[in-house]
Amino acid sequence: MTSLDDLPLRDDLRGKSPYGAPQKVVPVALNVNENTHPIPEDVAHDIVARVAAAIIGLNRYPDREFTQLRTALAGYLGHGLVPEQLWAANGSNEVLQHILQAFGGPGRRALGFAPTYSMYGLLSGGTGTEWVTAERDADFELAPGTAVAAVERHDPDVVLLCAPNNPTGTPLSLDTIAAVADAARGVVVVDEAYFEFADPGTPSALTLLEGRPRLLVSRTMSKAFAFAGARVGYLAADPAVIDALRLVRLPYHLSALTQAAALGALAHADEMLAMVDEIRSQRERIVRELAALGYRPYRSGANFVLFGGVDDPHAVFEALLERGILIREIGLPGCLRVTAGTEAETTAFLEAMAAFAPARTAAGA
Amino acid sequence: MTSLDDLPLRDDLRGKSPYGAPQKVVPVALNVNENTHPIPEDVAHDIVARVAAAIIGLNRYPDREFTQLRTALAGYLGHGLVPEQLWAANGSNEVLQHILQAFGGPGRRALGFAPTYSMYGLLSGGTGTEWVTAERDADFELAPGTAVAAVERHDPDVVLLCAPNNPTGTPLSLDTIAAVADAARGVVVVDEAYFEFADPGTPSALTLLEGRPRLLVSRTMSKAFAFAGARVGYLAADPAVIDALRLVRLPYHLSALTQAAALGALAHADEMLAMVDEIRSQRERIVRELAALGYRPYRSGANFVLFGGVDDPHAVFEALLERGILIREIGLPGCLRVTAGTEAETTAFLEAMAAFAPARTAAGA
Repeated sequence: MTSLDDLPLRDDLRGKSPYGAPQKVVPVALNVNENTHPIPEDVAHDIVARVAAAIIGLNRYPDREFTQLRTALAGYLGHGLVPEQLWAANGSNEVLQHILQAFGGPGRRALGFAPTYSMYGLLSGGTGTEWVTAERDADFELAPGTAVAAVERHDPDVVLLCAPNNPTGTPLSLDTIAAVADAARGVVVVDEAYFEFADPGTPSALTLLEGRPRLLVSRTMSKAFAFAGARVGYLAADPAVIDALRLVRLPYHLSALTQAAALGALAHADEMLAMVDEIRSQRERIVRELAALGYRPYRSGANFVLFGGVDDPHAVFEALLERGILIREIGLPGCLRVTAGTEAETTAFLEAMAAFAPARTAAGA
Repeated sequence: MTSLDDLPLRDDLRGKSPYGAPQKVVPVALNVNENTHPIPEDVAHDIVARVAAAIIGLNRYPDREFTQLRTALAGYLGHGLVPEQLWAANGSNEVLQHILQAFGGPGRRALGFAPTYSMYGLLSGGTGTEWVTAERDADFELAPGTAVAAVERHDPDVVLLCAPNNPTGTPLSLDTIAAVADAARGVVVVDEAYFEFADPGTPSALTLLEGRPRLLVSRTMSKAFAFAGARVGYLAADPAVIDALRLVRLPYHLSALTQAAALGALAHADEMLAMVDEIRSQRERIVRELAALGYRPYRSGANFVLFGGVDDPHAVFEALLERGILIREIGLPGCLRVTAGTEAETTAFLEAMAAFAPARTAAGA
């Protein structure tokens, strides 16, 4: 049998393993920050109708410029954005890959603030971009001075700011984003994958785009829009940035089905986003109740919570899995990450966590 | 206004233009080798039903390993292939990108035989792979000796063989493929995007896979399956090759909609492919009638025909466009390329071509 070592694989890939959270079928899956609420039925019907219409013309290539979708995305984001400022791809991972292909690549460097989204390093590697990380402040916060010092030290071509940050949930202030954008000579990407879960009134980095042609704000429909299976990520930036991404994207990269489905979801944005308030309240409940149990939840602006104070994270992960609850080990000592699901899923998780609670142990229970 | 030159774009992208055949709305579009027959209605209904079922679970990430789809693709291809030998992506362009990311990249070289599919050079550039081309024999044929000499001269890490070749339509013999596979130390990709249109009885490079772990055969559902809008390309190779591609693919690269739609089409493969015979007969009609008009059509195993003998290709292209017929200028002197469409589309094209016919001109008409 042929093995990987027998093939003329690139040297930098030797010994590596593919990315992948386990895809297990469990009753309560809270491991990959999906929206655990299904799409509302009436919206699903409209999406089916739009996709059905697209299937009639499926023998033809899709609109390479996905003009209708860019128009709908600009309308959803607001902030005076026009379709020429919008980009989309198969998940925000592909959006980030396009950015790294255009502005990173061999001989160039991308900077992030660890711990952060693990795909940044993989996407950098996949595009030949050097990936460097700088440290955060206490509790995974990132002050303007800390971030700017790292930019000055590493002189990156691409800065990847995850706001709020994954896997820690930490919100990122506009002060830090503006300071990085003004200090960096390269492009600065603000990954707002989880932005819709921020506390009401939190300003988006979209408000900083005007006059900053090297600032890019990416989003996804996977989370707030409950659309992880459809693979739609998108980006807002100066029209010149969109022209740059057009140079590296594969022609017809967005299928007619993807375009039709995304248009359907965006046409019902209000209804799709109605779930967000409920998810945010479950997140706050997780923070509150885990703290009461003696764990150390971190501040989160996302649909998940990172919490410390776990003596043996792997043992807790396994014990939860035995109860049909899947959460995420993310390699931070004493920490685990959990997605805010439905009320029932959150209850199941919290009840299970009570069994291992430090407070309980400390009380000698 | 910011221009591309104001941005920190990679140097190798400066001055480039994005790929793109014009996407014009015309009555007779024969320019990008689509299947001009829509999907049969009963098949479309089944695809809609499967996609509708997928929409219910769209809040969850898709099966990262697309196991059902790989099983269905193995079943469709036959030749004793098992799912572990199958790979798929958003169009065969993305399949080829994965191959170049795993086996090409900076410091490595890909070889093709010009003129060939223009995306090979773009995909090589996009992955930092050096792209070199060697010449074909007369009439765009490629004999084993010619191909092997080029492999020995360029010592490529990746060889891209387009069989039949685009934009020339030229079939490629198994002798040449086997000779290249045996001579090359790198991986050899046989791009069979148009294979289903080959003359009945033509053997596929799939018959050469056994015992050749560095031989890769890619296909697409865009052409024979009338599925260009769905973006489904795929590949058969040794399971170790599939493991290598898993290292470079973006996680969850194939949406749940794509997987569901492709499964629907594959479940009706016989009906989907029933159009192929009709398209092949229109191709033969184009070859026959263009020759009778005094043009020089080249031998084609695809759903399109390259023909020479055109005094002013651009003028003919424009004159056809005025009549609502869009074909393709591909930059070969005196040549144009046309897709074999429906009988009516082919008639419209041939009637228009009669007006510019060399035979007619020679006869003094």
